[in-house]
Amino acid sequence: MSLKEEILKIAKEAKFASQKLANLSSATKDRALLRMAESIKINKEKIKEENSKDIALAKEKGLSKALIDRLTLNDKRIAGMWHTLEEIARMQDPIGKIESIQKRPNGLQIGKVVVPLGVIGIIYEARPNVTVDAGGLCLKAGNATILRGGSEAIHSNIILADLLREAVDKALLPQGCIQLIRTTDREAVMEMLKLDEYIDVIIPRGGESLIRTVTENSTIPVIKHYKGICHTYVDEEADLEMAERICFNAKVQRPGVCNAMETLLVDEEIAAKFLPQMIKRFQEAGVEIRGDKKTSQIVGGIKRASEEDWGTEYLDLILSIKVVEGIDEAINHINSYGSGHSDAIITNNYSRVKKFLQEVDSAAVYANASTRFTDGGEFGLGAEIGISTQKLHARGPMGANELTSTKFIIFGDGQIRC
Amino acid sequence: MSLKEEILKIAKEAKFASQKLANLSSATKDRALLRMAESIKINKEKIKEENSKDIALAKEKGLSKALIDRLTLNDKRIAGMWHTLEEIARMQDPIGKIESIQKRPNGLQIGKVVVPLGVIGIIYEARPNVTVDAGGLCLKAGNATILRGGSEAIHSNIILADLLREAVDKALLPQGCIQLIRTTDREAVMEMLKLDEYIDVIIPRGGESLIRTVTENSTIPVIKHYKGICHTYVDEEADLEMAERICFNAKVQRPGVCNAMETLLVDEEIAAKFLPQMIKRFQEAGVEIRGDKKTSQIVGGIKRASEEDWGTEYLDLILSIKVVEGIDEAINHINSYGSGHSDAIITNNYSRVKKFLQEVDSAAVYANASTRFTDGGEFGLGAEIGISTQKLHARGPMGANELTSTKFIIFGDGQIRC
Repeated sequence: MSLKEEILKIAKEAKFASQKLANLSSATKDRALLRMAESIKINKEKIKEENSKDIALAKEKGLSKALIDRLTLNDKRIAGMWHTLEEIARMQDPIGKIESIQKRPNGLQIGKVVVPLGVIGIIYEARPNVTVDAGGLCLKAGNATILRGGSEAIHSNIILADLLREAVDKALLPQGCIQLIRTTDREAVMEMLKLDEYIDVIIPRGGESLIRTVTENSTIPVIKHYKGICHTYVDEEADLEMAERICFNAKVQRPGVCNAMETLLVDEEIAAKFLPQMIKRFQEAGVEIRGDKKTSQIVGGIKRASEEDWGTEYLDLILSIKVVEGIDEAINHINSYGSGHSDAIITNNYSRVKKFLQEVDSAAVYANASTRFTDGGEFGLGAEIGISTQKLHARGPMGANELTSTKFIIFGDGQIRC
Repeated sequence: MSLKEEILKIAKEAKFASQKLANLSSATKDRALLRMAESIKINKEKIKEENSKDIALAKEKGLSKALIDRLTLNDKRIAGMWHTLEEIARMQDPIGKIESIQKRPNGLQIGKVVVPLGVIGIIYEARPNVTVDAGGLCLKAGNATILRGGSEAIHSNIILADLLREAVDKALLPQGCIQLIRTTDREAVMEMLKLDEYIDVIIPRGGESLIRTVTENSTIPVIKHYKGICHTYVDEEADLEMAERICFNAKVQRPGVCNAMETLLVDEEIAAKFLPQMIKRFQEAGVEIRGDKKTSQIVGGIKRASEEDWGTEYLDLILSIKVVEGIDEAINHINSYGSGHSDAIITNNYSRVKKFLQEVDSAAVYANASTRFTDGGEFGLGAEIGISTQKLHARGPMGANELTSTKFIIFGDGQIRC
C-alpha cells in the first residue's frame, strides 16, 4: 500500500467511526474513557520503557534539554494522563444539547442542536501527552481523531495510541475512533491535509513553522494555536505591590509557556517609582531585562530593546520593558505587536479597566491578575486541546465544548413555502 | 501602484477600520445602516442605469438567461435591498453580549463576551444584492468588509459600493468599513487570499469551482457555502397527501436554489401507492424524472437514473427518485450522496422522526416540512450572508450572530498562579 493509500484508508476509517460515535450515549463514551485511563494506569512500565527509547534517540541526536524534558514521561506525568482521562469522563457531555426551540409564525419549530465536528486531525510536536489528551477530549465530544505526533516521540506515541485503541476496542467502539499515523514520513502530513472529504478540522499544535506549513497546505479548515506574546500594563493607578506580585508571577513562574509575560508596559507617571524595585526582583530571579530608552534612563546598566524584541516570544527568562504615555499607547502597542493571546492591565481605575477589556483584541484580557491563568483547567473547561488564537470557531482555551458543531432541527406539520 | 500593493492597501485600511468599528455603539452602527438604506432608495435610477450596462454586456457575451436574471436589478429588487438594510438596523446588536460570568475557586471572575470577527472578505458571483446584504450584515456585527464581486456585475457593484461608502462616510465611520475591489483581474483574489495578517475570514458564495479555488489557495480561514443536494424521504407511515404537497413544493416552487429537493426517496412499502400520482403531478409541472429500477417498475416510461444522478445538484426541473427498503437505507443514501445542506423525512412515526433528525448529518434536518425553508429570513435571522455547509464556526443559514467571535474577560483582584 502506498503512503497515499494508507492515509486515505485511515481517513475513511475515521469517517466511518465518526458516524458511529455521533450516535453513542454519553454513558458508552464515558465507559470507554475510563477504560482508556485504566489501560494507561496498568501499563505504566511499558510506557516508560518505550519512552526511554525516544529519550535515548533524542540524546543521541543532541536535542535540547528543554525538548528532552517535554518528551520525558515519568510516573507523575503518566498519572497526569489517566487523571485527565478520568476527569474528561466525569465532565458533562456537550453533545445533544438544544438551547432553545423557537416557533416561527408559520408554526415551524426550529432548534439548534450540538453535534460532533466529525473527524479531527491533530498534528503536534514532541509532547506525548497530547496523544492521550486529544484522543480523550475528541472522543468525549463524539469525534474520531487522527493523530500525527512528532518523530521524536514516535515510540511513546505508538504505545500510547495502542493502549487507547485496545481500550476503545474493549468498550466495543470502532477502532477508527482513535488512529495514529505511524510513519514519520513528512509526506503523510501533506496527504492528510488534502483529505477534506473525510477530515472536518485540523488542529496543529507546535511552533510557528509547523502552523504556517499546515495553514498553507491544508484544504481542511484549520484551528490555529499561535504563539503567545503576552503583555502586562501597569497603570498609574495600580496598587504597585499587587502589580509587582502579578508581573513577577507572569514572567517567572513558568517562563517556557505561551501564557507567560514577554513585555511589561509601564505608565510613565509611576515608572520611576515602580521599575527600580521590580527590575531588581526580576534580575535576582535571573531574568534578563531589555528596556526602551525611558526604562534605561530610570534603571542603569540594562540592555536596550530593539524593534524586534517587541514582537518576540522569548519563552525564556527574558523580558522587554517599555514605558508608555498612558493606556492608549499601551493598547496600541499590544494590538500592534501582541499575538492576540493574553494581556493584562493592573489598575484600580474603573474606566481604564473597562477601556482595556473592550479595546485589547486578544483571546483573554485580564484586569488585576496574572496572564498565566489562560488555560483550560484554570478556566474550568476540564482538559484543553490547546489555546486558539484565531477568531473563527473558537478563541482561547478549547475544551470538549469547542470540539462541536451544530445542526438545525425543524419540526413541521406539513408546512410548504409560498 | 501594483495590484499587490493595491490589495494590501485595501486590507490594511479594512484592518484599521475594523478596530474602530469594534468599539462603536449599536446606535452609531444602526444610524449608518439607515443612511445606507436611504442612499440606495434615493439613487434607484442611477443604480438601474449602471446595472443596464452590465446587462447589455452580458447579452453581448451571450450569457445564460438564468444568469442575466440573477444580474438584473429592477425596482422590486432595489426596494428589497434597502428593506434588508432597514431590517438589519432594527435587529439586536450581537456585539458585547456576555452569556454568563463564572466565579472560579480562586475568586477570578471569567466571562466570554461576543466581539466582531474583524475583517471579512466576501468573494461572490453575479448577484449584485450580495454587495448590499454582506456590507450591511458585516457592519451590524462590527466587521469591516472587503467585497469582491463577479466581473459580470462590476458596474452594478461599483455604484452600490460607492453609495454605501458615501453613507458610511456621512455617518462618520471610516471608509475602510466597506470596500470593493474594483479590478476584475483574477489575480486580485489570489493576492487577497494570502493576507491572513489583515483578513480574518473569507466567505465565498458561488459555484463549486469558485469555492474549490478559494479553499485551495487561501491561508485565511474559509467558511464554505457548497451546493445543496437536498433529499425528502417519504416513510411508509407518511400522510401521503402531506407528502405530495411537501415534495411538490420542495422541487417545483423555485428549482434553481440550493434548498430545493434534488432526490426523492420513497419507502418500498408505499411506493406503488404514492409514486404514480406524485410523478404524474411532477410531470404535469414539467419536471423530468430520473428513477431507479424499482421506480421504473412502478411507473413506466421514465428515464433511468445513473450513479452520477445521486450526486448531482440539478438546480432545474429535474428530479431523481429512488425506492428504498426503509429508513436505514434512506439515511445511508443521504449521508453518502448528500451535501449536508437540508433533508426532510415525512412520517407520522415518532421513533423514525427521532432517528432521522439524529442520524442525518446535515445543516438542517426536517420532519414534515419542505426543505425550501432553509433560509436566514425563514429561520428568523433577519438577512443571511449565506448558508454554511461546513461544520466549523457556523452551520446552516448565517446571520449577523454568525459573523462574530468571542473573547474571555477576566476580573481579578491580584490573583497569581501557583
